[in-house]
Amino acid sequence: MTDILTNPVETTATDSGIVLGANQYGKAEVRVVKITRDSERHEIDDLNVTSQLHGDFEAAHLEGDNGHVVATDTQKNTIFSFSRDGIGTPEAFLLRLSDHFTSSFDWVSGGRWEAEKYEWERIQVDGEGHDHSFVRKGQETRTAYVLADGDERHVVQGLKGLTVLKSTEAGFVGYPKDRYTSLQETTDRILSTDVTARWRFAEGSRDLDFDAIYADVKRILLEEFTRRYSAALQTTMFDMGRAVLEAHPEIAEIRMSMPNKHHFLVDLSPYQLDNPGEVFFASDRSYGLIEASVTREGSDPALKVWQSATAFC
Amino acid sequence: MTDILTNPVETTATDSGIVLGANQYGKAEVRVVKITRDSERHEIDDLNVTSQLHGDFEAAHLEGDNGHVVATDTQKNTIFSFSRDGIGTPEAFLLRLSDHFTSSFDWVSGGRWEAEKYEWERIQVDGEGHDHSFVRKGQETRTAYVLADGDERHVVQGLKGLTVLKSTEAGFVGYPKDRYTSLQETTDRILSTDVTARWRFAEGSRDLDFDAIYADVKRILLEEFTRRYSAALQTTMFDMGRAVLEAHPEIAEIRMSMPNKHHFLVDLSPYQLDNPGEVFFASDRSYGLIEASVTREGSDPALKVWQSATAFC
Amino acid sequence: MTDILTNPVETTATDSGIVLGANQYGKAEVRVVKITRDSERHEIDDLNVTSQLHGDFEAAHLEGDNGHVVATDTQKNTIFSFSRDGIGTPEAFLLRLSDHFTSSFDWVSGGRWEAEKYEWERIQVDGEGHDHSFVRKGQETRTAYVLADGDERHVVQGLKGLTVLKSTEAGFVGYPKDRYTSLQETTDRILSTDVTARWRFAEGSRDLDFDAIYADVKRILLEEFTRRYSAALQTTMFDMGRAVLEAHPEIAEIRMSMPNKHHFLVDLSPYQLDNPGEVFFASDRSYGLIEASVTREGSDPALKVWQSATAFC
Amino acid sequence: MTDILTNPVETTATDSGIVLGANQYGKAEVRVVKITRDSERHEIDDLNVTSQLHGDFEAAHLEGDNGHVVATDTQKNTIFSFSRDGIGTPEAFLLRLSDHFTSSFDWVSGGRWEAEKYEWERIQVDGEGHDHSFVRKGQETRTAYVLADGDERHVVQGLKGLTVLKSTEAGFVGYPKDRYTSLQETTDRILSTDVTARWRFAEGSRDLDFDAIYADVKRILLEEFTRRYSAALQTTMFDMGRAVLEAHPEIAEIRMSMPNKHHFLVDLSPYQLDNPGEVFFASDRSYGLIEASVTREGSDPALKVWQSATAFC
Repeated sequence: MTDILTNPVETTATDSGIVLGANQYGKAEVRVVKITRDSERHEIDDLNVTSQLHGDFEAAHLEGDNGHVVATDTQKNTIFSFSRDGIGTPEAFLLRLSDHFTSSFDWVSGGRWEAEKYEWERIQVDGEGHDHSFVRKGQETRTAYVLADGDERHVVQGLKGLTVLKSTEAGFVGYPKDRYTSLQETTDRILSTDVTARWRFAEGSRDLDFDAIYADVKRILLEEFTRRYSAALQTTMFDMGRAVLEAHPEIAEIRMSMPNKHHFLVDLSPYQLDNPGEVFFASDRSYGLIEASVTREGSDPALKVWQSATAFC
Repeated sequence: MTDILTNPVETTATDSGIVLGANQYGKAEVRVVKITRDSERHEIDDLNVTSQLHGDFEAAHLEGDNGHVVATDTQKNTIFSFSRDGIGTPEAFLLRLSDHFTSSFDWVSGGRWEAEKYEWERIQVDGEGHDHSFVRKGQETRTAYVLADGDERHVVQGLKGLTVLKSTEAGFVGYPKDRYTSLQETTDRILSTDVTARWRFAEGSRDLDFDAIYADVKRILLEEFTRRYSAALQTTMFDMGRAVLEAHPEIAEIRMSMPNKHHFLVDLSPYQLDNPGEVFFASDRSYGLIEASVTREGSDPALKVWQSATAFC
Repeated sequence: MTDILTNPVETTATDSGIVLGANQYGKAEVRVVKITRDSERHEIDDLNVTSQLHGDFEAAHLEGDNGHVVATDTQKNTIFSFSRDGIGTPEAFLLRLSDHFTSSFDWVSGGRWEAEKYEWERIQVDGEGHDHSFVRKGQETRTAYVLADGDERHVVQGLKGLTVLKSTEAGFVGYPKDRYTSLQETTDRILSTDVTARWRFAEGSRDLDFDAIYADVKRILLEEFTRRYSAALQTTMFDMGRAVLEAHPEIAEIRMSMPNKHHFLVDLSPYQLDNPGEVFFASDRSYGLIEASVTREGSDPALKVWQSATAFC
Repeated sequence: MTDILTNPVETTATDSGIVLGANQYGKAEVRVVKITRDSERHEIDDLNVTSQLHGDFEAAHLEGDNGHVVATDTQKNTIFSFSRDGIGTPEAFLLRLSDHFTSSFDWVSGGRWEAEKYEWERIQVDGEGHDHSFVRKGQETRTAYVLADGDERHVVQGLKGLTVLKSTEAGFVGYPKDRYTSLQETTDRILSTDVTARWRFAEGSRDLDFDAIYADVKRILLEEFTRRYSAALQTTMFDMGRAVLEAHPEIAEIRMSMPNKHHFLVDLSPYQLDNPGEVFFASDRSYGLIEASVTREGSDPALKVWQSATAFC
C-alpha cells in the first residue's frame, strides 16, 4: 500500500532531476439537487460534490499528453448521471463514484470524493409538513468523504459549523505562568465553539446505516459538550470524542477541530455598573484553536486517509 | 420634518461653494452577548448592534472640531452598559438607545440603530432542554432597525437568509419575446430563493409584542410561499407580502428582496438518460433579483425610513 | 418625474386595500469577460453586471400575468450580446443597456444598471508586458451605476475596497465626555480605512472620459488621505471629497462610507516592554463607521439616484 | 523522529481502550501590525500569525490538568511582545517563535507557526512615496509556515490568491472519451486560475534571503504561466514548479493547488451573432481542481511537514 500523496512518481523530468510528486485532480463543488418525485410527496437531496482522481497522470504533467486525463467535465457529468437513479446517503453515493472511476480506467488507482450535504425540512402548513415545499435547516453542514486506494475504501463522516455555547460550568486554571502570561484564572467563563468533526470508519465499511449513525453522533457531541464542568476545551473535546467511540464500535477514530470563541466579560466599572458574568463581548480574532484525534489503542493511524482528507497545500 | 439623508447642511465650505451633505456616523457591529442568570436556567441574547447618529456634525467635517462628536467608543460602551439590566426584544433595545442619544445630546437630532439577532436553542439532554448549554439555530437571521427623527420613532423588523424551495407548482410563461430571448416556457420548475424581508410598523409603534409578531410573520411568509402555483416569483412575493399585511394591521408596509436561485434541469440525454424533473444543477451566478414593496392604499411611503435602512453609498 | 422606488402604484389588490409599492427586477451578477483580439495584443474587460428594470409590472405581481416581464434570462442574453462588439468603459456600456431596454419596451420607464470592473495588468516577461497573459491587479474594485428614469440618465462612478493607512499624523481629541466615555484622547494614532466612494455626474453626462476621471479621482482620494493631520476621520473624509469636487466640475456630488478600522496599541508593560506607537492589534469588530456626502451649494440632492443605488431592503 | 500528527500517545483513557491521538493547540489569527518609526520614514509590517504547539498535553485532555497548557493567551502575548523589537521576514519571525516555545517549556516538543503577510505600498504624492501613508497592494497574499520538531526546523514559503489568465495559447485535446464525455476538444480556450503555491526549503534552512526568494519565485510563477502553449493546466502547473526548482536549489519541493476557473464561450448564434473567442461567461462553480507537487529525484517527501501544514480535519 502506498502513501498516495507523498510517494513521488520517480520520473526524471529534466536533466536537473526534477520529478512529479504527489498529485490529484478532478472537478470540485458540483452542486447537484435531486428531487425524487415518484409520488406527490417529493424528497430532496442537496449536495456539493467534489471528485479527485489518483493514478498515473505523469504524461499530462510532463509531456502534455492527456491520454489518461479523464476530463473534469466528464467527472461532473458522471456525478449528475449517477444521481439520476437516486443519491441515497452521501457516503453510499461517493462509494458508487469511487467504484466507477477505479473500475473504468486502468490507470486510475484511486481517488478521493467529498460531499457537503445541506439539510432541508418540510414547510409546515396548517400543522402538516408540505409535500413539495422546503425550508433549509441551517445549523451544521454534514460532510462525507471516501478515499479509494486500489480495492481499499475508507469512509469518513463529519459535520462542520455546529455552533455551541455553555454560559457557565467552564473555567481555566492551573496553567503555567511565564513572563508573557497575563491571563487571570477563572472557574466561571463562557465556553463557545464551532464544532468541526470527522469520524473515520474501519476500512471496508460500506453497509452501515450512515444516516442513523450521523444523527446519533451529532446527538452525542451535543450532549457531551454539556455533560461536565469544562476544565479546558481540550478536556471537553476529548470527552466528546471518547463518548462517540464508546457508543459506536464501527468508528475507528474521530478528529475534531474547535476554535475557542472568546467571550470577554466587559468591564462596566467605569460606568458605575457591576458585571457578574452577564455582559460579554464576542470576539472574532484572535481565537484559540484546539485540535485532537481520539482513537483506539493500537489502531492504525490511517495516515493516508487524513492526508488526503485535508488541503493539499 | 426633514429628509435626513438628503437635505444637505447648507454651509459654504470653501470659496468654490462646496458643502457637507447628508452624513451620519457611529459604531458598527458591536457583538454583545447577554446571559441572564437570575436562576439556574440561563437565558441568552446574542446581538450584533450598530449605532449611527444624525445631527449637527458640521464642525467636525469642516474644521476638525470634535465638540459634537460623541465618540463611537462611547456609543459602544453605552450599548454594553444598557445590556447590563437586560436586552429584551431587539426592537425595544434599539428604542432605548435611540431615546438615550437623542435626549442626552442637544445636537443629536436622530439616528439609526440596527441589530441582527442570532437565535439559540437549548441542547437536549435526556429529552430535556439544558439549563445553560445552547446550540445556535442557524436558518434565518432576525433583523431590527429603528430610525429616530426628532420625536418620531420608526421601527422596522425583518429577517434574512431564509432559504426556501418548492420542487414543483412553479412555472414561467407568457413573457414577451424579442431578439435576445431564448428561454423556454415551463409550467414545472424549481422555485428557490433566500428571503430577505423587512416590515415597517406605523410611526410611533413601541408597545407591540415584537417577538410574537416576528414569529407569526415568519410563519406566514413560509406558508404563503407554498400556498399557490407560482406564475412568477413576483406573484409569489406579492402573495407573501399581502398575507402579512392582511394578518397584521400594525404593519404598514413590507419590503422584500429575493434572488431567483436558478436550478437548471441537467440535460442527461447525451448519456442515454431521461430527466423528468429530477436532476438539477444549482447555479450560483447570475441569478434573478426580484424586489417589491407591498403597502396600504394611500399610505405614506416613508421614504426617509427606507433611505436610512439601507447602504449609504 | 416620479420617485421611482417610493411612489406606490395605487392599485387596490384586495378588498383590504393592499397595493403594490415600489418594485424592480432583473438579472444580477452577470459575469462577462470580453477578450478583444483584433490583433495579437489582446485586451480584456472583466465585468460583473446587474440589470434591473422599472416600469409597469403590476399584472405580474397581482395576477400572475407575465406579459410585461422581460425575462431576466433575456436581460442576461442582452448583456452578453451587447459585449460582442465591445464593452468600452463600464459607464458607456451601462448607458447602452439603459437605452436599449427603455426604448424596446413601452412599459419599461427606466431602470438601474450596475457593474463591478476587475482590473488586470499584463504579466511582465523579460521586462515587457505580455500580449495575452494577465494578472489581476487586486486592490480596489471599480464600480459603475446608471439610473434611467424616462429620458433622464444619471451616471455614478465609484470604487470600493481601497484600503489605506497612515501610521501617524492622526488623532482624536475634544469630543464630549459623558458617563459612558472611557476613550483617552490622543494626537498620535493609526488611521486606517477601506474607502468606499461613489461620485455622481450631473444628469445627462454621457460623453465624458470616464476612464481618465476614474484614475484621477482615485489619485486625489489617495493624496488627500495623506495631505493633512487628521483631526477625525470625518475631517479627512470631507477633505477627500472636497478635493474631488474642486478638481472635477463635472462631478455633482461624492458620497463616501468609511469604516474606522481600529488599530489598538498593545499594552506591553506587563511584559516589561514599552510600546511607543510601534505594536498594534488590528481589530475586526466593532469598528467606527463614518459616512458623508460632499456636494455643491444649492444643488439638487438627487434623492432618487441614491435610493436606487443602494439595497432595496 | 516521530510523525507528529499521526502517532497517538498510547494511553489507555478508559477501560474501552480509547486513547488520545494526534493533537495540537494554540492561538490562531493574531493580527499584529508593527510600525517601525525610528525615522520619519515609517515602515509597516502587517501579519496574521497562528501559533500551535505540539508536545505532551495528555493530562489536559484526559484529566483536565492544565499544568502543561501554555495558555493560548500567553502565546498571543508572546507574538505581540516579540514584534516589539522588529518582525523582519515572516519566516525569521516564525523561527524566533518556534525557538522560544520549544526552549522555554520542556514538554513542548515542537509546533507549527504560520503567517499571512499583507503587503502595503507607499501612497504616491507629487510623484514621491509618502513617509507614513500606505495603500494595501491587494493581489496575492504571502504565506509563511515553520514546523518545529525537536531541533528540526522546516520552513515553507508560499502565496495564495494570485489570479492569472491567458486569453489564448491554451487548449485541451486527446483525453479519453467514455459514455459520460460530452466536452468538445479545443486548441484555443481561456485558461485562468488562482495560484496557491507553497515551497519547502531543505530542513534547517534559516539564513536565506527570504524576501528576495519570495519575489523571484513569484516572478517565475507568473512568467512560466505565460511561457508555452498550455496543453492542460497540469502541464502548465508542472512547468511552473519545475522552473522554480531549477532556479532555486535551496527549494526542495513546491506544491501547487489551482482551480481551473472555467470561462465558457457564450453561444450567441440564437441572437444572430458570431463569437470567435470574444465573449465568455466566467463560471463560479463547479471548477476543475488541479494539485501537484514538484520535487527532486530521490528526495524525502517530508510527509510530516505537509501534514501539519494543512487542515487538521
